Amino acid sequence: MAPVSAEFQRVIDLLAKLPGLGPRSARRVALHLVKRKDASMLPLARALEEAANAIRTCSTCGNLDTHDPCLICNDARRDGSIICVVEEVGDLWALERALVFKGTYHVLGGTLSALEGVGPQDLNIAPLIERAGADNIKEVILAVDATVDGQATAHYLMDQLEGASITITLLAHGVPVGGELDYLDEGTLAAALKARRPF
Amino acid sequence: MAPVSAEFQRVIDLLAKLPGLGPRSARRVALHLVKRKDASMLPLARALEEAANAIRTCSTCGNLDTHDPCLICNDARRDGSIICVVEEVGDLWALERALVFKGTYHVLGGTLSALEGVGPQDLNIAPLIERAGADNIKEVILAVDATVDGQATAHYLMDQLEGASITITLLAHGVPVGGELDYLDEGTLAAALKARRPF
Repeated sequence: MAPVSAEFQRVIDLLAKLPGLGPRSARRVALHLVKRKDASMLPLARALEEAANAIRTCSTCGNLDTHDPCLICNDARRDGSIICVVEEVGDLWALERALVFKGTYHVLGGTLSALEGVGPQDLNIAPLIERAGADNIKEVILAVDATVDGQATAHYLMDQLEGASITITLLAHGVPVGGELDYLDEGTLAAALKARRPF
Repeated sequence: MAPVSAEFQRVIDLLAKLPGLGPRSARRVALHLVKRKDASMLPLARALEEAANAIRTCSTCGNLDTHDPCLICNDARRDGSIICVVEEVGDLWALERALVFKGTYHVLGGTLSALEGVGPQDLNIAPLIERAGADNIKEVILAVDATVDGQATAHYLMDQLEGASITITLLAHGVPVGGELDYLDEGTLAAALKARRPF
């Protein structure tokens, strides 16, 4: 006989599928929740349902928001002539937290990956090409991850965007702010040295 | 302007309070969920609500189950004359997974802790003393953690149960099955050596 009831097991199974959680941590989270039904479990259930019902994908840029077009696309104070291309919504949030970019975004929804069978048609690429072809667009920043798949995706996008009269840029490589040289990999150090600047 | 909508932020805040998750992993989980609304987010919301409504604390032993008394307390095939005292429901589950104990349980709901101000009245101790005083009870196993607080709780329970004509036992200390001596602490090694047995 299993010691855990079916309802409980279902919660554990669903939690165990979340990134960063496994069967053991899912059990721990489930126990934590059920011991705090009114303070944690029911509020989380309701918050999840409300968010699921309220949040949609922006049909312009692919951001997740309660509005479509999203608040970023709809913000007249932002510079619509610059599109920053990111892999995931999480990357968009990270850039927004840095408070330095005042253009618009385009979320690809992943990277090209021969290994995982992800082709251009699986990503939000065609709408990007269309957006980038508009007259007002001046610059496309390819802010993809510095991984093999990220760079392959950047190269593909570079090829696709070549005809348009726009500037295509990449994020700079270098030493992370606060980073210690001793802990950096050789590739980053080589890139930082190559792109050194006058003091 | 915050890049994250209020509904989304609420999900992140609630997730960030769960054990093992912080703001960063909570964001990751929230993004994972909202990208899989129908496959993950809504099922999790519903599972949480159903479990919260269905699961209650067993009034006999403190286990969490959809039944009260719980299925373990209600199982006539189990030996009601042995009570295994554990700190948390998670410990009960761990013992059940080991498939070796066929008695009943008693969940304390924590340990005594002078530092955190947890006294005997804050734990499920009085009902245990009452249960242990019944005529049919032969043995109480104090399966508490091998921590300072766990051992202090065991000593307190030992004192409280002293008058009753029952056997009080503790879990054995020793080398974990599959454990390497090189990685064990001195205390465990000393206990294992002291309790050595003939081959």
